[in-house]
Amino acid sequence: MPVFDKSEYLERIESTKLRMMQFGLEVLIVSDPANMNYLTGYDGWSFHTPQIVVVALAQDEPICIVRGIDLGGARGTTILDEANLVGYPDDYVQNNRQHPMDFIAETLEARGLGRGVVGLEMDAYYFTAASAEALEQGLPNATFKNAYTLVNWVRLIKSPAELDYMGQAARILEQVMKTAVSAIKPGVRQCDAAAKILAAQVSGTKEFGGDYSAIAPMLASSAATPHLTWSDKTFAKGEATIIKIAGCRHHYHCPQARTVFLGKPPQEIVDTAKVAVEGLNAVISMVRPGMTCEEVDGIWHSATEKSGIVKDSRIGYSTGLSYPPDWGEHTISLRPGDKTVLQPDMTIHVISGIWRDDWGVELSECIHLTEKGAVPLAKTPRKLIVKK
Amino acid sequence: MPVFDKSEYLERIESTKLRMMQFGLEVLIVSDPANMNYLTGYDGWSFHTPQIVVVALAQDEPICIVRGIDLGGARGTTILDEANLVGYPDDYVQNNRQHPMDFIAETLEARGLGRGVVGLEMDAYYFTAASAEALEQGLPNATFKNAYTLVNWVRLIKSPAELDYMGQAARILEQVMKTAVSAIKPGVRQCDAAAKILAAQVSGTKEFGGDYSAIAPMLASSAATPHLTWSDKTFAKGEATIIKIAGCRHHYHCPQARTVFLGKPPQEIVDTAKVAVEGLNAVISMVRPGMTCEEVDGIWHSATEKSGIVKDSRIGYSTGLSYPPDWGEHTISLRPGDKTVLQPDMTIHVISGIWRDDWGVELSECIHLTEKGAVPLAKTPRKLIVKK
Repeated sequence: MPVFDKSEYLERIESTKLRMMQFGLEVLIVSDPANMNYLTGYDGWSFHTPQIVVVALAQDEPICIVRGIDLGGARGTTILDEANLVGYPDDYVQNNRQHPMDFIAETLEARGLGRGVVGLEMDAYYFTAASAEALEQGLPNATFKNAYTLVNWVRLIKSPAELDYMGQAARILEQVMKTAVSAIKPGVRQCDAAAKILAAQVSGTKEFGGDYSAIAPMLASSAATPHLTWSDKTFAKGEATIIKIAGCRHHYHCPQARTVFLGKPPQEIVDTAKVAVEGLNAVISMVRPGMTCEEVDGIWHSATEKSGIVKDSRIGYSTGLSYPPDWGEHTISLRPGDKTVLQPDMTIHVISGIWRDDWGVELSECIHLTEKGAVPLAKTPRKLIVKK
Repeated sequence: MPVFDKSEYLERIESTKLRMMQFGLEVLIVSDPANMNYLTGYDGWSFHTPQIVVVALAQDEPICIVRGIDLGGARGTTILDEANLVGYPDDYVQNNRQHPMDFIAETLEARGLGRGVVGLEMDAYYFTAASAEALEQGLPNATFKNAYTLVNWVRLIKSPAELDYMGQAARILEQVMKTAVSAIKPGVRQCDAAAKILAAQVSGTKEFGGDYSAIAPMLASSAATPHLTWSDKTFAKGEATIIKIAGCRHHYHCPQARTVFLGKPPQEIVDTAKVAVEGLNAVISMVRPGMTCEEVDGIWHSATEKSGIVKDSRIGYSTGLSYPPDWGEHTISLRPGDKTVLQPDMTIHVISGIWRDDWGVELSECIHLTEKGAVPLAKTPRKLIVKK
């Protein structure tokens, strides 16, 4: 049931161990669900209780420690041997008298992995402050180091098999975006449009089913804010609606944003959309491996500067394998100060969003960076969508 | 745009302040999205970057600090005055050179809230170990105390307006469960059934739209594990599928589980389902305010003990207002050792799940505990659903 060949997981584990050696780590405790999946195949909506994958230089295979009732899921989805699957008793769950990380610390100690330099993903979503405290108390012989994003950086360059899934996610996305654009009409409730979007995301295509997206569909109408979801409100003529969605396949995301205007758009919105498209097109046509992230940000600003628009949020980031709440990989950001050099087979969500006081325009594209430049994964036309 | 009267938010803030005094806190930093919403109305899928609500005894109104581009969302959804809305620059986002909590600490310091005893939600999902470290370093004059679940405990007793939303969520759930049961047929892909479930959840009813659930629909077929989502696999005769879903209204959840069998079920499954129903019915008919949580767990075990079934996971927990990844409130659990006394107007998800090596049966009900006993919120028949 793992969705990649075992050899691919083994390569990922090797790359992670190499990085651990560079960072001086003997043991790495991974709690980001995407990193757990990347290294072992583990899959399940079980990240609401603590769970980890442990990579140790001294061990060939990682260990996966989950809630006991999730062991069946670990057996079914990981490449790991039974000896490396551990479940904790249910009495540790959401119980202020003991923490699952107490059990995890005891398990590591018992297996001789509780000493030396141990890496923790200090800023991973589900690695809470209490989790870190429990591990620090339970492993008094360990020295801890922040290893946040260590595995994320291994994920940055996509394999051919990963790119296949991203391509499938793009096929799904194309259908979802068409569904979204056709669902947005005057008098239709936002929730009914969102329902159609979600159904299209999850149904996928005839060849391959879709997955849940790490971010719920965003449908902000006449809103100066990018992270609103839907309400019971109906769409109305004269409104710009930003659709921000992804197609997903085995948790690989192809995100995209488009803006739909119902009726005849005011000149100001037409002009702003033109600038947003120009910025996006400039980045897509000019980005090359060897550039730094901040240079790519500079392309966007050069292409749009004559419009006088000031934008202070980043214009993109790495994307791919993700679980809620974010499809970003938390490694590279296209913004001033990020001097990471781009390499072939990165997949990047490039975003051209301009918000005013009470409306916004956003277009984005997920690109595969090849030796020759950017290949947009999806084929959605890149313009303000006007529905008269 | 807040979904409750302002007076209700003010009461919640007052109750929170009372609890803060009991715990010796002067300032409380709230980062659980459900708690942020509960106290201020704040809504948005923006919890993938750090954001907080600060309650201070010295201040009438809480302060909400979010990413700058989410300020529009905060203006639109909270009861707060503009003076109490703060946005941090985008350059703090996913940037290993600075953390949003650095900015938040400076803001608190500047407002005189960086001293005294400060409570932190140490085990809240999005309050990472790095967040705690940044606050501790940025507020050297503060003394920190773990205030995890302080606001969750205030949320335990539901107001009439909250119960209205839970009732609406139940109406939505009834439709979603019907949709799910009818979608599960031999030859249908799991993803296509999940698509219909999600659409029904979000479309809601004609009177009120649905919301995104804090947990994705679970559709485990012939699986000995409760937290698997869907795949491209088709349903087949001879399989038991556990459907675990919620109806949601303004982030209030009414969860429910049922098990569907395609074809003629083996006697073992029929018998196990009978036990699961008996256990669930016993709890629903006998639970009363004044009982402890562990007494309610005992009801389930007494009702099922003659079957010889051993169950070591909890049989329920408090539910209501939630954001991903969990619709549980992390307060009471129906299990041995939990001596919390039940009170009227709690809403509890009671779960009767029995898993074997390669299959499971689960039925659950969300109840409103009244003076007179449990009122199940939804009206779905309580039995193994057999589709011949």
